Parts: sequence; structure tokens; C-alpha cells
Amino acid sequence: MADSIPETQKAYLVPELGGTVNLVTDYPVPKPGPNEVLVKVLYTGVCQSDLHTARGTAPGADGKFITDIKLPHVGGHEGVGRVVQVGPDEASTSRGEVANVKEGDVVGIRFLARVCHECEFCTSGREQHCQQATNHLHHEDGSFQEYCVLDTKYLTLLPADIDLSVVGPVLCAGVTAYKAVKNAGLSTGQWLVVVGAGGGLGHFAIQYGKVAGANVVGIDTGKVKQDFIESLGGKFVDFSKSPNIVEEIKTLTGGGAHAAIVTSGSPKAFSGAVDMLRIGGTLCCIGIPPGDVHLTTPVATIIIKGLKVVGNLVGSMSETLEAVELVRKGQVKPHIEVRDFDQLTEVYELLERGDILGRIVLRVAG
Amino acid sequence: MADSIPETQKAYLVPELGGTVNLVTDYPVPKPGPNEVLVKVLYTGVCQSDLHTARGTAPGADGKFITDIKLPHVGGHEGVGRVVQVGPDEASTSRGEVANVKEGDVVGIRFLARVCHECEFCTSGREQHCQQATNHLHHEDGSFQEYCVLDTKYLTLLPADIDLSVVGPVLCAGVTAYKAVKNAGLSTGQWLVVVGAGGGLGHFAIQYGKVAGANVVGIDTGKVKQDFIESLGGKFVDFSKSPNIVEEIKTLTGGGAHAAIVTSGSPKAFSGAVDMLRIGGTLCCIGIPPGDVHLTTPVATIIIKGLKVVGNLVGSMSETLEAVELVRKGQVKPHIEVRDFDQLTEVYELLERGDILGRIVLRVAG
Amino acid sequence: MADSIPETQKAYLVPELGGTVNLVTDYPVPKPGPNEVLVKVLYTGVCQSDLHTARGTAPGADGKFITDIKLPHVGGHEGVGRVVQVGPDEASTSRGEVANVKEGDVVGIRFLARVCHECEFCTSGREQHCQQATNHLHHEDGSFQEYCVLDTKYLTLLPADIDLSVVGPVLCAGVTAYKAVKNAGLSTGQWLVVVGAGGGLGHFAIQYGKVAGANVVGIDTGKVKQDFIESLGGKFVDFSKSPNIVEEIKTLTGGGAHAAIVTSGSPKAFSGAVDMLRIGGTLCCIGIPPGDVHLTTPVATIIIKGLKVVGNLVGSMSETLEAVELVRKGQVKPHIEVRDFDQLTEVYELLERGDILGRIVLRVAG
Amino acid sequence: MADSIPETQKAYLVPELGGTVNLVTDYPVPKPGPNEVLVKVLYTGVCQSDLHTARGTAPGADGKFITDIKLPHVGGHEGVGRVVQVGPDEASTSRGEVANVKEGDVVGIRFLARVCHECEFCTSGREQHCQQATNHLHHEDGSFQEYCVLDTKYLTLLPADIDLSVVGPVLCAGVTAYKAVKNAGLSTGQWLVVVGAGGGLGHFAIQYGKVAGANVVGIDTGKVKQDFIESLGGKFVDFSKSPNIVEEIKTLTGGGAHAAIVTSGSPKAFSGAVDMLRIGGTLCCIGIPPGDVHLTTPVATIIIKGLKVVGNLVGSMSETLEAVELVRKGQVKPHIEVRDFDQLTEVYELLERGDILGRIVLRVAG
Repeated sequence: MADSIPETQKAYLVPELGGTVNLVTDYPVPKPGPNEVLVKVLYTGVCQSDLHTARGTAPGADGKFITDIKLPHVGGHEGVGRVVQVGPDEASTSRGEVANVKEGDVVGIRFLARVCHECEFCTSGREQHCQQATNHLHHEDGSFQEYCVLDTKYLTLLPADIDLSVVGPVLCAGVTAYKAVKNAGLSTGQWLVVVGAGGGLGHFAIQYGKVAGANVVGIDTGKVKQDFIESLGGKFVDFSKSPNIVEEIKTLTGGGAHAAIVTSGSPKAFSGAVDMLRIGGTLCCIGIPPGDVHLTTPVATIIIKGLKVVGNLVGSMSETLEAVELVRKGQVKPHIEVRDFDQLTEVYELLERGDILGRIVLRVAG
Repeated sequence: MADSIPETQKAYLVPELGGTVNLVTDYPVPKPGPNEVLVKVLYTGVCQSDLHTARGTAPGADGKFITDIKLPHVGGHEGVGRVVQVGPDEASTSRGEVANVKEGDVVGIRFLARVCHECEFCTSGREQHCQQATNHLHHEDGSFQEYCVLDTKYLTLLPADIDLSVVGPVLCAGVTAYKAVKNAGLSTGQWLVVVGAGGGLGHFAIQYGKVAGANVVGIDTGKVKQDFIESLGGKFVDFSKSPNIVEEIKTLTGGGAHAAIVTSGSPKAFSGAVDMLRIGGTLCCIGIPPGDVHLTTPVATIIIKGLKVVGNLVGSMSETLEAVELVRKGQVKPHIEVRDFDQLTEVYELLERGDILGRIVLRVAG
Repeated sequence: MADSIPETQKAYLVPELGGTVNLVTDYPVPKPGPNEVLVKVLYTGVCQSDLHTARGTAPGADGKFITDIKLPHVGGHEGVGRVVQVGPDEASTSRGEVANVKEGDVVGIRFLARVCHECEFCTSGREQHCQQATNHLHHEDGSFQEYCVLDTKYLTLLPADIDLSVVGPVLCAGVTAYKAVKNAGLSTGQWLVVVGAGGGLGHFAIQYGKVAGANVVGIDTGKVKQDFIESLGGKFVDFSKSPNIVEEIKTLTGGGAHAAIVTSGSPKAFSGAVDMLRIGGTLCCIGIPPGDVHLTTPVATIIIKGLKVVGNLVGSMSETLEAVELVRKGQVKPHIEVRDFDQLTEVYELLERGDILGRIVLRVAG
Repeated sequence: MADSIPETQKAYLVPELGGTVNLVTDYPVPKPGPNEVLVKVLYTGVCQSDLHTARGTAPGADGKFITDIKLPHVGGHEGVGRVVQVGPDEASTSRGEVANVKEGDVVGIRFLARVCHECEFCTSGREQHCQQATNHLHHEDGSFQEYCVLDTKYLTLLPADIDLSVVGPVLCAGVTAYKAVKNAGLSTGQWLVVVGAGGGLGHFAIQYGKVAGANVVGIDTGKVKQDFIESLGGKFVDFSKSPNIVEEIKTLTGGGAHAAIVTSGSPKAFSGAVDMLRIGGTLCCIGIPPGDVHLTTPVATIIIKGLKVVGNLVGSMSETLEAVELVRKGQVKPHIEVRDFDQLTEVYELLERGDILGRIVLRVAG
């Protein structure tokens, strides 16, 4: 199989932050080293974070923009590919790491690329917080290219019988929503509100919430989003039509939601969600809003209502595979639209306008 | 014993919100009804919330001032007393509730006065959030009087062998700190930072943190507070002397604290504490700051660092008794100074200046 | 309404343990005292424990038979009734407990009758373990009569819009299964095995497991049970036909179940269930088997596989209302057959033969 | 440094299961391969499991003896060593795993040798249950030799400032006790009973329990054990002198212990411990008793008392480092006696007689 691997490939290059995203055809195909495999990319989802990074507006932990981005930058971290080459020299190692992977295996290209396996986060199932980690958003070339190199020591092996066109978005948006639902700590029958329910993150949050036995209310706007949210089993509330959305949610839920997941980046969405919470409720923050978005809820409210606010950065390998498994079993159905690889610019425009139901996936070589 | 109960008593009255606090001598001694006992108050702690309520600046769940306060108001919710009379007519009931209490029993006068026993909060060990509850801060006369009526269906029976002069503050400041340490979810050996460590809440938080196996850093200022905090087993950091307190805490804790308890009401204290947290850390909010105090941390920080923010309103009956038990066993030692009952005004002045180590307790009839 | 209450009523009396269960017509209607209400029984489920108690073979915490049973005994602890009279003298109390209940309210008659509200179990949402409690199985007359007295301080207020004929079994079998699923601590998508899946406990366990997002395997035998279990969404395995049921479950679940709920009382069922568990799995014990039933699993297995075994006695008030709520919403559907009140003896016979799908409910005055 | 590594070494060889343990001097020093280091062993603890494995009586998950042991067998899994050689060819890899380790580093030799990093257990912080793992008890040569090869992808890097003579036993007995205390889920002030409190596991369990804020009762026998247990802060109860040890524990703990850790392998110890538990209590099983040891507690008792039984196999890397950290800080002090490397046979004899306080450590090259 190795003889069919070309020297160059198509890839979306960002030569400098804030510049244009260019589809080139002569980007070198990388060579896998020891403990690495070369993967032919089949599909890739498109995440808002790709857009932020290309523009130079990726928010960091300190709320400022991250400027230390590998250039030229190749985005894409919701990818699915097939192993076409195993790194060299492994046959000569006594206990080769590559034993677990072979040509033809289907693997995911996720946000996280490599982790140290040794720090307090790696050894406790929270390796997405590893401070030695590299990722496909800031440090390594991702799935917006035809061939990608992956680390065999942190490989996302996918089940053989999964629909490859839908699984990419599960690896980022899906697991993020899955983990947020976990963080919500809901008992069956409790109420979950999803703010921004019709988008990529939101439509996953509704479904993972339903699977966990929650009653889910999806907040968004317009008839198209309403039909979509209701088709997923959520009750719909239109934020642009409700005279008092907080009171509406409180009435609907008999006193307030047990948890709220906010996928929108607006400060108003966060403070509104807190007001919708029941005593003892949990606000799940996901999606990394711009750095100037703060909670504007009084600390006194957090105390007197006994609230929890929980931040969530994607999910671990373990949690990712759990999120994938529910898709494999058909309990969660990613809503995706497949477009050609050369449509990235158009997809970015739709993302900015919030005009996407679920997620758009690009066919790279699928 | 009943014949020795007078008709009138000394009490601190607040005739109107924002007015003066007056020690009167002719306030009527209340009569216990069915399912009630009359308690002779022995000692009472003095909490910042008493001062806020008297002034009309008690923050509510919506961040605004609570104005629906029983008038005249009698404060005090860290009291200890002895049962001197059991309510009438109980002998005629087939299964009297009063069976569990008798004259001579020692009981606590806590923030919570009565609860409904039936709502979702009462039936899940979180009755401090009962929406039918009454409390000794806003609805019923508290321990700033010589005799107080308590509900036998929600009675805080204290162990017979506890030091009655120290236990009052445990019933509010103590259990609040105890619950915050629980919410912190620390494993033994992890780092806890207490901001405002030398005060009533803070000195309990240090000790309950130590009992839970945490390494505790107390942040406060001045040599007196330093000596106090170190005597409790905490490491001391002076916020007014540290050139960069966030970096100092990060170095001391090898990357940031696993949890922070903020007892101060300043917005800066909250945002500083978030920055001191390790990835995955927990900010425990207690003490009900004024309504205009918000978290000023970017939501992006909460997400990328995977933080938790947990609000905590005192504690349940069960948690209160757990907090008391650790005092009874000597593992936690309330630092108190006993003053005469007529010193309340002076104590309020000290509280405002933050000039108290631990807590001041007034001797009512002790 | 009170004038229509008769002096005597129909009731199933057990005059002595091990004796016959007699339907009499002249059993006195009890009078509600203070803090009590009189309830007209509408429906009652029939639980295996009623049969055990009547026979004198009710297993206690020490594994021996409980002999301290009120005689004559009136069983029934899965009852639903309507309040027809509020206890006397309450108008004269200053803060009557009865304020929360009025004639016409619909209430449950559960295993637990009265609790102390003060012990470590009552104050932490585990009041089913209150050592001062009385129950409708050993201490007080239950729902196998037309009128029953209930304590207003521990009243199971049911939602007005629930189907009264189905809710009785939820109050015992339902909440027991609900709590077992909670104890199982399953993540969505994990595997739950229910041993004895077609009976009263089992059919609830399947449904509460499904609501929690689990994949459920029901083990039982025969085509009728198979159709029933599959109609509830469980996969069916027939223990009498499988050549190696442990291996069959391991294959089906990809390595073993994450949790098993055993509703059967046979020692073999328990040890078999342990062997079906995945590493780190949980065995949920419910249903109180005879006292001579022990786990026969080596402790070494529990250690090396890192297993948990969790015992569960019904559920708390809070958990009961959660279990009821899922029925009210239609997410869990009790499978019941309604029979006349005079059919109790026939139902006991069916229970002994294990020939009941779901639960049989007697119409008392429904 | 590499030139000083000899070709052969001293090692304890077990040529066949059940045979003698022989100290030989000509066992080949292993060569580190890629992703491996060679470690000079400084100290090694001696664990009962070493003895069981040598004899062919190591219990497996099915309760039967494990017979698939590498032969000749070299035991030892509580070792501490210094890296003296880094595996070959690593310089040529693009991102060598060995970057995190260098000659001179101090590392632990634990039960777990290699893990797959990919299964559900490895990716969720429970890698001790990895089914692809190798260990130093059954598959690879351990610390009963002068030089040992370790996998750099699963290396236990120890803090530089720890006492190397005491840390070995923490890596097995210590972390096992630490994890059992975690599994006990104790709140501060609750009661923990340790059965077999004076031995290696037991003396760690007392100390980790104390650090977690528990009140600890140590059960063992004799004045020497009594003095030892009391010196560690535990209350002592002598099982051979108490007329009714269950009642004694119930009285001492006000109703039963919240958790019990059983380090002994006798069936009586397990069932006795269950009887000592409070309602809702937890039995923590550690130490892998022989395969014919079962719980002989009625399942009815587990249900009616609402008990938990939790098995625990050592601990994960993360938990091991947490257990080590508490030793480094001086909050837990391993009680060890250092003997020469040639004393292994004598130590085995003492282990069998139960005549060891804490743990014996052999100096290999320390």
C-alpha cells in the first residue's frame, strides 16, 4: 500500500494568523517516524475553533488570544482516516508500540495529538489537560489535508462498523457535549436546558442529555431550529419570542432546570442560564467563548442558590470512545451535511452566521 | 422549672431596617406552642450577617437586598441554649413529637429555624434550601435575647459533653467552612488556599481543611494573623506584602491549589483565587458577599482550566452535627473570645474593621 | 365527608405468624390522631414481602426471621389512597403540621410509615434506615384494608395527574429498582444485566436502566418472559437454554456487564451475576433473599476484578418521588394487572410460582 | 556510567513453582531495549504476594491458583532504584519517549510493569486492571535482583527528596491501603476499623485513614502490636481478649464503624468486619486472600443495612504518586526495618508467622 502514497497533497494552509485560508495542492505529505503512523484522511468536521485559530483569535486559558501557533497552520481536528503506513524501524524493537495498529485500521484525528502519559492529568484520565501535550489546533497539522501523521501511543482507534462520514464531529463537538452532560450530574427525569441547541454542540447536548434520561429543553430561535430540536426529542423555547424566558423555563421545569449547557458565547446567555437554574443546579460551560465573556451573576446568587459552575475542555480518550460508542449503537445520531473538501471557505461563512443545523463535514477522500 | 421563667427579658431589638440596635429589657418572653420548646440562651456568636440584616443590606438570591424582614428584628443565629419548657398539650397527643427532647437538654439556635420536611430539598438532606423554611435571620427572633422558642421537629440537639462557650460559632461559620471543604472534594495531600484565613470563617476553613488531610495555605495580612494562622497549622502568605501572590501560591503548591475557599467579599479576592487554582481546581464560594460582587474571570479560563465554582449556603442539619462532632473530639478548636451580652455594638465595630481573630461570643446566661 | 366514614371495614388479617390470611369485614376503622390523616385505600400492590411476613419468614438484618410483628397483622405497603379526614385538634395549634395536606389529596402508603426526622439517617436523606422508624410491614396496619391512618409529618403526596391504578408498585418495587440503578452508577451506554427480569422488581429495573441510558440484558426463562422483556427494550437471555450463560453475557457485553441487579433470591443467581461482571463492575443486591443466601464469590475475585457489591433497602422519600415522577411522565410504565380486593390468596399463589409478569394490583375502592 | 554495569548479578531465583528460592550470583544483567531503562536496585520491600507466587499459591481472579508464571521467577515489586542506562537507538527517534528520564533519576519498581495505554482501563486512570499489562509478580523479573529493566512509557518517577529506604513498601502496601481508604469514602470524623492493623498493609491503613480525618480503630493482638498501633494514632482493640469484639466496636463507634479495611485473609475476619459496620457502611477488601475465602455474610444483611463491599487491587500510577507524596511530606511514616539482601528467607518466615511490625526492607545496593 505504501507505494501509492504521493509526495505532495492538497491542504488548507494558513500562512500567517489573520490571513486567508488557502487550498494548496503541493503541501508535502509527512513521513511517519518511530511510534507513528501515516493516515489517509477520509472526512473532517469543521469546528468554530478552526476559524478562530486561523484568524488569530483563539482564546487561551488567560482569556487572551493564543499567538504561539505553528505556521503555516493546517487546521482540522474532527477527522477520520485510515492507516496507510506504519512508521519505520519498529520491527527491530523488542516490544514495538505499533503492535496495536496496522494498515487499514480506522482512526480519529482529534484536538489532542500527543500527551506525556506521566503527569497528574495523564495518569488520572484527564489527559486533555496535559501541559506537555500537543494538539491539532495549535501545534500540529490536522485533518484539513489529505494525509496526516499520528502518534501510535495516543491513537484513537475507531470501531470498524461505524459510519465514517458522521463520526468526525463526535470527536470534538460530540465528546464535549457528552462530557458536559456528565458534568451536569443529572439524575434521570431531571431537567436540562441547552442554550444554543440547534448548532453543532447543541444538537449533541440534546441527544446525550436524552440518553442520560434527562428532560431536555432546547433554546434557540426560528422555525427551522424548532423543527430540528423537536425532532431530537427536545422541548423548544424561542428566545426571541418569549416575553420572559427565565420565567418560562421556571414554569416549564417546575422551579428551574437542574442543569444548563451553554453553547453560545454571549455573556447574556451565561447569566440568563444561571437564572434559569433550580436551587442546587449546575451550569456547564463549554465551547470557549471569547476572552472578554465573564459570568455576570452575583456571587451571592451562586451561594444562596447553592449552584455549581463547571468548565469542560473536550474530553479524555476514554470519554471520547464512550461518546463514539453511543453513536455506533445509534442512540445518538450526528446531524451532518457532507460537502466537498473545497467548500471550507463557504462553511466558515455559514458558521459565522450561525446558519448550520448540526455540523458540516467535508469529504476529503471518503 | 417553668415557674422561674420571667414574663419579659433583655433583647437586642432592631425596630426598623437601617436603624439602631437597641438593648431593651422588657421584650416579652415567647410562649412555646405545640411541637415547640422554650430555650434559655446561654451563649451566642456574632456573625457579619446579623449586622447586614440590621442595616437592611442583607443580600438575597437575586443579588438585591432582602427587605422582607420581621420587625422588630432580633438577630443571633449562632446560639446555644438549654431547654427550660416543653410546649403545652403534648401529653394528649398519641405520638408526641416532643418525646425526643426534655427540659435540661442542650440545643443549638441556628440560622435555619423551621423546615417543611417534604420538599425536594428537605427529603434529600439539603433542607437549608427549603423554600418554606423560616430562619433566625429574617423571620424569627434569634439568640440575641434571653429566651428563644424552637421547633421540636427541627431541633439541633447538642452532645452533652461539649464546651458550650465555643459551639455557637460552629453552628454557622463552622458548618459553612466544613461544607466548603467537603465541596472542595480534596484528596489527602492536596492544596487548599483559604483567602481571608484569620477571620471567623477562615480559621474554621483552615482547621476543617487540615482534618481532611489537605495542605492549607492561609492568605491574610499582618503579624497577628500570621501567628494565628500558623498556630492552626496553615502556611501563611501575606497578600499585602507578596509582589505577585498568584505566582507565589503557584510555586508553593507546585502548579496551583486544588481548591480555594474565599471568605472575603471583595471581587478581587474571587478573581485572584481563580488564578491561584490548578487545572481542574475548585473555587468554593461562601459567606454571601454584597450583591454587586461578581466573578470577573473569563468563562474561557473556567473551560480551558476545567475549573469548578461551587456555592455553599451554611449546611444541613446532618452536616452541622458532623462539624460539631469534630469540635467535640478536639480535632477542630474554635478560637473565640467571650464577652458580656451588652457588648454587641462594640463587636459589630470590630467586625467591620476585620479586627477579629476567629469569633467573638457573647455570654447571655452562660 | 367525615360523616360517610364507617366504623368497621374489610381487611386482610393475619392473626398469628404462619397462620392463614383472612378477609374479615368487621375490622375497626382507625381514628386519626394529631398529625395524622385517615386515608381511603384505592389500590394496593402485592409484594413478596407481605407473604414472607404473614408466614413468619421475613428476613431481618441479622439474616434471621423477624418475629417481632404487630398482631393481628394487616399487610400491604404499595398502596394508594385519598385523604378523607384530617386529624383532630389541629386548628388549635399555632403552626399545624397538617397545613400541607387536605381532604381529597392523593397519597401513597409505603413500607416506611413514620421516621424520627432527627437521626443521622433522617437528616441525610436515608431515612429508610432510621432505627426509630415504623413501617407497614412489621409495625403498623397497611393497605390491605379499606382505611389507613398516615403520619402527616412523613406523607407521600402523589401528583394529581398520575394513573392511580399503576403507582402503588412504584412505591416499593419501583423505587427499589430505581435506587439499584442509581447505585449501579452507570454511564450512558454501559451494560446492565437484570437477573429475574420478568417479575415485579425486574421489569422496573429494565425500564429505569433504559431511562438512565444503559444497554440492558434481561435474564429470565420462557417465551412469555422473553416477549415481555423485549417489549420493555431489554435484550433477552434464557438461563435455562444457554449452554454457558456467563460466557454468553461476556460476549454480548464485550467483556462483561458494568452492573448487575439480582432480583432473585437464589445463591446461584448472585454468584453467577458476579461472574458476568466486567472489571470494576457493580453487583446491586435488592429484594431481601432468605437469610441463608450468601455471596459465594471468592474475596480474591472481588479484589482482583475491583468489584463493588451494594445493598439497597427500598429508597428514601426523595428517591420515591423521583421514581414516581418518571412514571408520571410516561418514561417508565408499570406493567400491572388489576384484580379485585378479594383475590389476595390467589395472587400469593402466583407469586410463589413466579408466574407474574410485572405486578398484580388489587382494587380496594378505586 | 554504562561501563560499570556488570554482565551478571545477584538475584533470587525461583526455578519452579513451589520450589526453593535461591540466591544466585550469576544471573544475567538485562539489556534495556528501545523505550526502556536499566535501573540499579537500591532497596526492595518484601510482600506476602512474593511468597505466594514462589510457592505456586498466587490467587487469580477466578479464585484458583495462577500457574502461568514466568520461570525462572525473580520476585520483588516494592523496589526503588536509580537509572544507570537509557535504552539504545533513542537518539535517532524524532520524539523519543526517553526524554522524560535520564541517568541518575530515582524510580520505583512496582507490581505493574507495562500497560497498553489504550484500553478502557488505561484511559480512565485504572490501568492496574489493563488486561494487556505485564507485572513484576508473574511476568517480568522484579526487584529481588541488582539490576532491573523498566519501561519508560510507564515509569514511576520518584521525588528526589524522599527517603529511599522507606518508599518501596509505599509502592504496593502503601498505595493499596491508600486506595482502600479512598474507597471507604469517609467523611472527616467518621470511624474506620482496620482488621490486622499491625502489619504492613494495616499500619499504612491506620495512617492514611488518620490523614483523611477518620477516627481509626486498629484490631490486632498483643502488647507489641498495641503499642505500635497506638503510636500511629489508632485506638487498639485486642481480638483475642475481647469477649465480644463486634459489640465492643459498636459501643466504641456509637453504632458501628463507617468503614472497615480487612488486611487479614481469614473468612472470619471478613464476616466479623461486616458485623462491625454501621448502617450504610463500607467493607474494603484488599490483600488478596486465598481463593477459598468467601464473604459469609447473608445477602439480606447487605441489603437491610445498605452496605457496600469494595474490592481494591493496589492502585493506579496516579494514586501511587499521591500515596508517595504523603510520605514525602511526612504525614505518613512507613515503619520499616532494613535488612541485608541475603535475608529474604528469614523474612519470609517472619511473614508467615505474622511477626512483623510494618514492613521489612532489604538493602540491595542502597
